Amino acid sequence: MTTSWLDQSIMHTRGIGRERSIVTHELTEAKQGTFHFTIGPYSQPVMTVKPGDRIVVETRDAFDGKVKTEQDLPSKVLTMPFVNPQNGPIMVEGAEPGDTLAVHIESMAPRGPNPRGTCCMIPQFGALSGTAFTALLGDSLPEITRKIDVDEEGVYWSKRVTLPYRPHIGTLSCSPEIDSINSLTPDQHGGNMDLPDMGPGSITYLPVRTPGARLFIGDAHACQGDGEVCGTAVEYPSLTTIRVDLVKGWTLEWPRLETAGMIMAIGSARPLEDATRIAYKELVLWMEAEYGYDRWDAYMMLSQCGKVRLGNFVDPKYTVGAGILKTYLVP
Amino acid sequence: MTTSWLDQSIMHTRGIGRERSIVTHELTEAKQGTFHFTIGPYSQPVMTVKPGDRIVVETRDAFDGKVKTEQDLPSKVLTMPFVNPQNGPIMVEGAEPGDTLAVHIESMAPRGPNPRGTCCMIPQFGALSGTAFTALLGDSLPEITRKIDVDEEGVYWSKRVTLPYRPHIGTLSCSPEIDSINSLTPDQHGGNMDLPDMGPGSITYLPVRTPGARLFIGDAHACQGDGEVCGTAVEYPSLTTIRVDLVKGWTLEWPRLETAGMIMAIGSARPLEDATRIAYKELVLWMEAEYGYDRWDAYMMLSQCGKVRLGNFVDPKYTVGAGILKTYLVP
Amino acid sequence: MTTSWLDQSIMHTRGIGRERSIVTHELTEAKQGTFHFTIGPYSQPVMTVKPGDRIVVETRDAFDGKVKTEQDLPSKVLTMPFVNPQNGPIMVEGAEPGDTLAVHIESMAPRGPNPRGTCCMIPQFGALSGTAFTALLGDSLPEITRKIDVDEEGVYWSKRVTLPYRPHIGTLSCSPEIDSINSLTPDQHGGNMDLPDMGPGSITYLPVRTPGARLFIGDAHACQGDGEVCGTAVEYPSLTTIRVDLVKGWTLEWPRLETAGMIMAIGSARPLEDATRIAYKELVLWMEAEYGYDRWDAYMMLSQCGKVRLGNFVDPKYTVGAGILKTYLVP
Amino acid sequence: MTTSWLDQSIMHTRGIGRERSIVTHELTEAKQGTFHFTIGPYSQPVMTVKPGDRIVVETRDAFDGKVKTEQDLPSKVLTMPFVNPQNGPIMVEGAEPGDTLAVHIESMAPRGPNPRGTCCMIPQFGALSGTAFTALLGDSLPEITRKIDVDEEGVYWSKRVTLPYRPHIGTLSCSPEIDSINSLTPDQHGGNMDLPDMGPGSITYLPVRTPGARLFIGDAHACQGDGEVCGTAVEYPSLTTIRVDLVKGWTLEWPRLETAGMIMAIGSARPLEDATRIAYKELVLWMEAEYGYDRWDAYMMLSQCGKVRLGNFVDPKYTVGAGILKTYLVP
Repeated sequence: MTTSWLDQSIMHTRGIGRERSIVTHELTEAKQGTFHFTIGPYSQPVMTVKPGDRIVVETRDAFDGKVKTEQDLPSKVLTMPFVNPQNGPIMVEGAEPGDTLAVHIESMAPRGPNPRGTCCMIPQFGALSGTAFTALLGDSLPEITRKIDVDEEGVYWSKRVTLPYRPHIGTLSCSPEIDSINSLTPDQHGGNMDLPDMGPGSITYLPVRTPGARLFIGDAHACQGDGEVCGTAVEYPSLTTIRVDLVKGWTLEWPRLETAGMIMAIGSARPLEDATRIAYKELVLWMEAEYGYDRWDAYMMLSQCGKVRLGNFVDPKYTVGAGILKTYLVP
Repeated sequence: MTTSWLDQSIMHTRGIGRERSIVTHELTEAKQGTFHFTIGPYSQPVMTVKPGDRIVVETRDAFDGKVKTEQDLPSKVLTMPFVNPQNGPIMVEGAEPGDTLAVHIESMAPRGPNPRGTCCMIPQFGALSGTAFTALLGDSLPEITRKIDVDEEGVYWSKRVTLPYRPHIGTLSCSPEIDSINSLTPDQHGGNMDLPDMGPGSITYLPVRTPGARLFIGDAHACQGDGEVCGTAVEYPSLTTIRVDLVKGWTLEWPRLETAGMIMAIGSARPLEDATRIAYKELVLWMEAEYGYDRWDAYMMLSQCGKVRLGNFVDPKYTVGAGILKTYLVP
Repeated sequence: MTTSWLDQSIMHTRGIGRERSIVTHELTEAKQGTFHFTIGPYSQPVMTVKPGDRIVVETRDAFDGKVKTEQDLPSKVLTMPFVNPQNGPIMVEGAEPGDTLAVHIESMAPRGPNPRGTCCMIPQFGALSGTAFTALLGDSLPEITRKIDVDEEGVYWSKRVTLPYRPHIGTLSCSPEIDSINSLTPDQHGGNMDLPDMGPGSITYLPVRTPGARLFIGDAHACQGDGEVCGTAVEYPSLTTIRVDLVKGWTLEWPRLETAGMIMAIGSARPLEDATRIAYKELVLWMEAEYGYDRWDAYMMLSQCGKVRLGNFVDPKYTVGAGILKTYLVP
Repeated sequence: MTTSWLDQSIMHTRGIGRERSIVTHELTEAKQGTFHFTIGPYSQPVMTVKPGDRIVVETRDAFDGKVKTEQDLPSKVLTMPFVNPQNGPIMVEGAEPGDTLAVHIESMAPRGPNPRGTCCMIPQFGALSGTAFTALLGDSLPEITRKIDVDEEGVYWSKRVTLPYRPHIGTLSCSPEIDSINSLTPDQHGGNMDLPDMGPGSITYLPVRTPGARLFIGDAHACQGDGEVCGTAVEYPSLTTIRVDLVKGWTLEWPRLETAGMIMAIGSARPLEDATRIAYKELVLWMEAEYGYDRWDAYMMLSQCGKVRLGNFVDPKYTVGAGILKTYLVP
């Protein structure tokens, strides 16, 4: 159904793999072996793919599967910083610093027995709690684990409320150039952006900073509200199918995203206004560079029609997407 | 068309004016006489209305009508702090501290000859510029005035782009108890929230802090993007029709908003994460107090389905709304 | 002892009252009558003085004297926003918008019977607690009142610790132009800066924004740490002696301060980096305008020798002073 | 001269190397070979020492020696992220996660021919400029290089001003557990704190998070103002002599510092209030855990006598130290 817009997407019009016949790879838990908790250039690749290839990835949930029942409290069963396990790194042939990796999420299906979904209130974590950075002297909020049935029809939150199944990938990134960044932190490389727009149908564009790109992926959410206010989404193990492609010589400072109807620039920083500034600045410059807008016309027009998505304001950096409808980009 | 949900709204189910026959008042420019640039208890009321009454207000644009052509630069024709003129204060019979004033916007029509709309880039103002508070040493961005034709069919931004007419009120408030706050600043009283949801069909709930409530209103926008990034919306003079009602004994800390499909709590603060914290905290407490939610269930569920609107991140305080669909509030 | 530097101060070299014989006024509690909790142009003046005059002011403590014993908890005996009572407004003859009012603090003596000093932990207030703006869901910290003996020899904090008597004025301001700002909030007018440098011997320069300047003063502290971390200092009633003078045509955006050895610019904003930016920017521009520094030389040199004082990071806006030793200002 | 207080320091009373005879190691540029631009567990150690040993380190300046004249502009001669080169990692025998490494700076002498000192205004860097995170649309400030003569008598800033030689180490850290963090960023491991207190005579306490501690050191400053406002100090190559010792089982969340007269806790975060919160919270908990203070007594007393040092507000995270005089810690 999304064929038409995909054909016109940046990925398909500028990616070098668009002509190739698709090869499908499987990145099972077994093949992954050791999952990663830090995203950088120092880990061992799990596979190499070509631009245009499809990869079917078995992701673990952000708790690494250790929160099995509502009696499993995070402070008991988790050991920091070993949370948010990542699949990868996946090497992409021909990727070099200065290129951009396109990641199209084709589908996300739940894995494992129900209740597959997990949401926790974790001590000293979450937007309405003192945290490691907003360091306060008060007691922590209560520690609570919720286990939730999830299928492709819905997220069965409680007897009272069923939420729609709105899957997306919380953490997606290529490796930074020399740093290795824990998988809880989003930054210029992508990372733990927790952006609900990053679901099936979307294409994320990630800056390539090391040879081979070194793609990491994990942290599937069955749904998530804007800001992920309590600190966790409905975390679940997924079967996520992606296609990757390579846009040579398209050099990004920050990740970007494209959907059928919108383009979006993504910023991650603290305080939250800085994340928003980054996203809007990147969007203005993008409109100027590639869509024929004068810089100040773009800036003033976004003041009338820009769309902001708050990804998270709970991670070590906060993430905001600033977008514009494609209908306004037509000449 | 909105009759059905309005009948079920907080305003209509709890307001004391719901039984009265509606009296319509006109607050023309002439009747207003002196507009106000600060919102407080020290100004002379322009009229007194009863709960349930309708008021048809002639608002001026945020530039007080002084930016007439694209040659009129803000730094030349404006004198700070005399911007964002407010109609009012309107006294509401029976309103006492501890009550809440409900303001239902029935309609907003453009006034005056075209180009009625004005958007400016103002020196040392806007989210991607150094400002009076984010004080930097660099040069200002260019100063630019755009005049825009506006009618109820559209906002004719440029030859290339017509934006939808999405009117809303930028500034709405009752008086603070003892302070008088310039009309550029949003805070616990409401004020310059610049929230696109505050348009026709919406009901805003404002805390009453002085006898008579002292309602101020102004700053109509023909449309506005999330965050109002360049610092101004499409500002225009409007004929705004509101109905007011009074909910006795409903004591709010911050403004709230209701639409056909959603309830929303509103926070204004810096940094932006604090505005977002306020909005979400107020929403959690609201769900606990009035919709039968356990506090932690509300908190964790909003982490899955909460909706965030960035009103502005350019005013002296930033404004965020956090909302939840009414479908999740049904028992 | 401070005669020599005072003779060279901006106040004495540029103030118009330097030639006059000093007249001393007394602003007793009785003469003050009604204290003020908001700083603005709408209150009734208590006296008029001439540039160069001395005023001996009986200030109340920030709790308006209502916290008399360690059993008096703030939440029981205080009613917001009626805290931090201010003496004034004092009219200064000849003061007009665009001028600067110089306030030299000559001395500060304790008043009233011991324990005169009061320090409280107030619910939802203080830097290591959730607050009205950093809005969280956890419980408040405990509410605690400490009563402390204070004399000019020391602050008798506990059996274990005696702190030095380091008095200063927490709140000092002329009126804003049209706003009236609660006495808890610092801003461009001065207000509740809580800056320990503002003690005997210092001269504060305040922008005049209304005819007569309308000086407000209050909130004496017997001592205070950098940042006033728990939210309150050792608050006490004082006999504070000031001299005022007027620098015609010296137009400031923000308050400034001078001591024997240093000049300091003061900024108040959130987040804290913005307060610091304001202070440093104002200091750079001051050095450029009045001390013969090239702008970039000043900026780079302050990166090597600038002194930062954190006044408070607990009030509705945070206050920072950025200073430079006078020895570096000599040509 | 500092013998007496050193004998009473935490380092000397609790370090396991205090009894050993001191062995002195030399870490010359030649021995270092490859300098490091990221601080983590993945690099090759340069040497192993024992607790109590002395190390004489040849540090390079933060520009890696590439800014040789005032014509060398950073944007021309530097390649990000290859700035702020670090010596190390130095392995410390017996150090294990959960221990603390004490680093006493004995002396810092300038190296190399004059002008040894370098200060630059770098595009999109510094507190009064738009940056990569406070992302704005305006032009950058001018790019300027200053070369400064430095010796142990003074920093010869200009014909007009000689600043005192106040050397300190800008960047000091043990390795994080799994992350590798660029040397521009301070965080829980220490890193680029740019704290002027970290000079000769001081002892820094660093959390050990990997076996052997993996000490990194670099970024000598001949002097620095509070906040390092333009983004750089007087950067210079140094001969820095340190002694290290190991406090077994003393587990810190954040670095701490001790001088003859003061103890200080250090926090690094954005926004700046969060860095300050961390520092003060850590100090309160330290006073409670080790100096016999009740938690709330410590909190309230620091509100009267706490000392705050702004290290930097220009790096990717800002750094603040909160300290208390040792005289208040005596029972």
